[in-house]
Amino acid sequence: MLELKDTQNEADDRQIPIDRVGIKGLRFPVDIHDKNDRTQRSVATVALTVDLPAHLKGTHMSRFVEALHQDGGVLDVRTIADLPRDLLVRLGGKKAHVEFHFPFFRSKVAPVSGKAGLIDCDVRFAVEVTADGSTDFELTVFVPVATLCPCSKAISERGAHNQRGMVTFSVRSSEPLWIEDLIAMAEESASCELYSVLKRTDEKAVTERAYDNPVFVEDLVRNVAARANAHPAIVWYRVEAENFESIHNHNAYAVIEKSI
Amino acid sequence: MLELKDTQNEADDRQIPIDRVGIKGLRFPVDIHDKNDRTQRSVATVALTVDLPAHLKGTHMSRFVEALHQDGGVLDVRTIADLPRDLLVRLGGKKAHVEFHFPFFRSKVAPVSGKAGLIDCDVRFAVEVTADGSTDFELTVFVPVATLCPCSKAISERGAHNQRGMVTFSVRSSEPLWIEDLIAMAEESASCELYSVLKRTDEKAVTERAYDNPVFVEDLVRNVAARANAHPAIVWYRVEAENFESIHNHNAYAVIEKSI
Amino acid sequence: MLELKDTQNEADDRQIPIDRVGIKGLRFPVDIHDKNDRTQRSVATVALTVDLPAHLKGTHMSRFVEALHQDGGVLDVRTIADLPRDLLVRLGGKKAHVEFHFPFFRSKVAPVSGKAGLIDCDVRFAVEVTADGSTDFELTVFVPVATLCPCSKAISERGAHNQRGMVTFSVRSSEPLWIEDLIAMAEESASCELYSVLKRTDEKAVTERAYDNPVFVEDLVRNVAARANAHPAIVWYRVEAENFESIHNHNAYAVIEKSI
Amino acid sequence: MLELKDTQNEADDRQIPIDRVGIKGLRFPVDIHDKNDRTQRSVATVALTVDLPAHLKGTHMSRFVEALHQDGGVLDVRTIADLPRDLLVRLGGKKAHVEFHFPFFRSKVAPVSGKAGLIDCDVRFAVEVTADGSTDFELTVFVPVATLCPCSKAISERGAHNQRGMVTFSVRSSEPLWIEDLIAMAEESASCELYSVLKRTDEKAVTERAYDNPVFVEDLVRNVAARANAHPAIVWYRVEAENFESIHNHNAYAVIEKSI
Repeated sequence: MLELKDTQNEADDRQIPIDRVGIKGLRFPVDIHDKNDRTQRSVATVALTVDLPAHLKGTHMSRFVEALHQDGGVLDVRTIADLPRDLLVRLGGKKAHVEFHFPFFRSKVAPVSGKAGLIDCDVRFAVEVTADGSTDFELTVFVPVATLCPCSKAISERGAHNQRGMVTFSVRSSEPLWIEDLIAMAEESASCELYSVLKRTDEKAVTERAYDNPVFVEDLVRNVAARANAHPAIVWYRVEAENFESIHNHNAYAVIEKSI
Repeated sequence: MLELKDTQNEADDRQIPIDRVGIKGLRFPVDIHDKNDRTQRSVATVALTVDLPAHLKGTHMSRFVEALHQDGGVLDVRTIADLPRDLLVRLGGKKAHVEFHFPFFRSKVAPVSGKAGLIDCDVRFAVEVTADGSTDFELTVFVPVATLCPCSKAISERGAHNQRGMVTFSVRSSEPLWIEDLIAMAEESASCELYSVLKRTDEKAVTERAYDNPVFVEDLVRNVAARANAHPAIVWYRVEAENFESIHNHNAYAVIEKSI
Repeated sequence: MLELKDTQNEADDRQIPIDRVGIKGLRFPVDIHDKNDRTQRSVATVALTVDLPAHLKGTHMSRFVEALHQDGGVLDVRTIADLPRDLLVRLGGKKAHVEFHFPFFRSKVAPVSGKAGLIDCDVRFAVEVTADGSTDFELTVFVPVATLCPCSKAISERGAHNQRGMVTFSVRSSEPLWIEDLIAMAEESASCELYSVLKRTDEKAVTERAYDNPVFVEDLVRNVAARANAHPAIVWYRVEAENFESIHNHNAYAVIEKSI
Repeated sequence: MLELKDTQNEADDRQIPIDRVGIKGLRFPVDIHDKNDRTQRSVATVALTVDLPAHLKGTHMSRFVEALHQDGGVLDVRTIADLPRDLLVRLGGKKAHVEFHFPFFRSKVAPVSGKAGLIDCDVRFAVEVTADGSTDFELTVFVPVATLCPCSKAISERGAHNQRGMVTFSVRSSEPLWIEDLIAMAEESASCELYSVLKRTDEKAVTERAYDNPVFVEDLVRNVAARANAHPAIVWYRVEAENFESIHNHNAYAVIEKSI
């Protein structure tokens, strides 16, 4: 049999290394180990890349998918570097970067009725390893919350505008953190957390809780930042919040990033 | 010069006519004539299709784009059938269907301060003409509004959850209607309309107005339906509303469609 | 304890029934029974609605979520009517409608190397039941495929433009159909099916297969329609295809719907 | 009249400054001055932020919208710093950041028939000014192109898989650059550029041109990088490319960033 030409392995003379090359937008079923010592199944959208030195024309795309099938089915913070390390073995290069973005579920109990229901939250794992052995892990939670406007409450005789907001909270830490704990830090920083099942007694409770805890988008990111500053294991964070204002057709937005 | 083969014009023996074939997802700048007798420029996402009889293998895709360039730059309800009629001339067939989806702007004055600001709203024109001369025009406005929950207000000692909602209101009418008038019907049916510029005096006014006018998603679609029922020119409508609940991570939804 | 006011149960005098009211955009983990007699876990986006008679002011939103938690965790065509029937019991009304939209995975073997890899495909279950006992089930698969342009091949001395396309294929059937079989009908109708892992020998095979099987978007929907016409259990179908043309920044589109 | 409480102006004792706070997701009509000395109207999605010192509780959101109405209607690289400077005047702070993301149209002539048609391309202006007078301007073009796989061409007896790809090309420059010139750098780096109108003679030409110019996603970003390296005014760039592979349901991706 004739050998098929290996175009990717040809030499390249443009003398331009590539920072990251690989695949993006691939969906893959994953198991996530959660705080309750249970495994939950989800579906991740995956990006896998390595760097490419100047002298090589191309990478080998199919090897990314093969590595994913071998190492990518279980997301566990203790073994999260296995897949990018495997990419370096299969593909060469000095750095490998992997991202998994997936919905994560918690069971949450309504505050008065005690009714339980599942509620979702997006999570992103971003891991970079280098050939000399370093690992960087950035964990991000995307937490929907309720925010009630302090200004609207202060100036109005009755009521106050409130809305759903989205907190995007990324951390790097000196030891593994639970997804659930990061979500809680965002939820506690808002006017009220969200629920999937609320009976009338619960709806009364969350309405009043939100009214009693007004936060601007500025307060929301500061509250999360204060919690992150106080956490002994968090060495870097970035917290963004976006409120889908109920009085405007645009959003209020704030971000704080702590330098390492 | 050799004639290039015209594959599309070949015969097809599968005996299956095609309901609609053409192009989709094409962006095009358009001028819209508005109620204030001004022309506003916007950018539409366009879909253009015709039917294809069973005996033809394919349509001629480039002619859709040529017709759009000739007839599609101005959206005016009085001439809206010109483009689909031109498609029938260029492409043959018994039916042509065109859709334009675009952001539309109104200048809106804040309720107390009188500050003016532009606010956007998506609009869709869907027009179908037949070779025997009939024209069907469906006009849709996508109107963001504020909704405040009557149950939350009734059971809570203070406050009430509220949120942004989206009303999707489609009509067919016996005479041309202004986009602005349809938007107003949706806005008047909500707890409060949205603004782009609100000073503190305005924020107090809209907060209290929303609190004084609680509506469920059910009330919202019924209020729009009642207005549509009372309008002498509206012969068909469909009204949908989706509330991005500030207490849940899911949405409340309702729809009413009036049969012709 | 004081009884909390039940606003939803109040009378309504607008005399306007609501076609569908409920919840939308809720994500929920589901198990799907597949053709290989295995269960796969996925995450669905869910919409649940019932009709509301004119005399009632509102529905009870929390009951939809409670019903989902009780009946919605397993998607099986044999028991798919359980959830909407439960909605009718909990909420009253004459019709209940449920929709689940989720990614579905198959293991697919590369054509020459035999390497196996998972590939995803979106699926939608839409079920409507009525109080008098009828059930309507519409199953939709969203199948990505490759299409190679017959005209481009016929007129060009070398090469032919090709691209990813999306087939949206919905059916109603007289007996349960497997998701996998519907996907196969769409894949066989295209120039070539897609794979997640392709080694060089495979890439040669799929490139040549696509070149040898050119299809217009018109051919693609007709090929699926012909297969659906020939299937004894399919009583209704709608097949749409959209090609993300590699020579344009817009898409080619076609649709065929068979009336019942 | 009683003074309404100014909650935003209250003191804050959490001692946490905010990097950016403001508004996001606001749509606004804009005029863009193009290379042909014409003005084209588009619709931008806008984000406007300033930093907030630790001692202030909140910013004043309405002033962002007022500044936008005063300065934001015309996008011209020569006056692009006016709006963020105005934000610093109205809101205080040490840094202001503005972003406009909008579709931009060019008229493009088909290569053989000479037929002209408009084709769209997204563009982003990101401008940051500081209170001490510095201005940073990052211009990004999102350019759809065609890419044909060199490996598929080399190993296959006939045909080669190709697809639409998206180049995201950002630059900082020592003098103003035209949007049109950046788009051209991306288009010339691909297998072929895209068109809105192509007659059969044109389709033959672009099919063969793509076949004669195969590029991997790696080649595409390197070709753009080489052009950017050679451009005397470009002092920084980042070029990303994503190919919507016609043989996979995932994308090939590469990025090169030049440090300043």
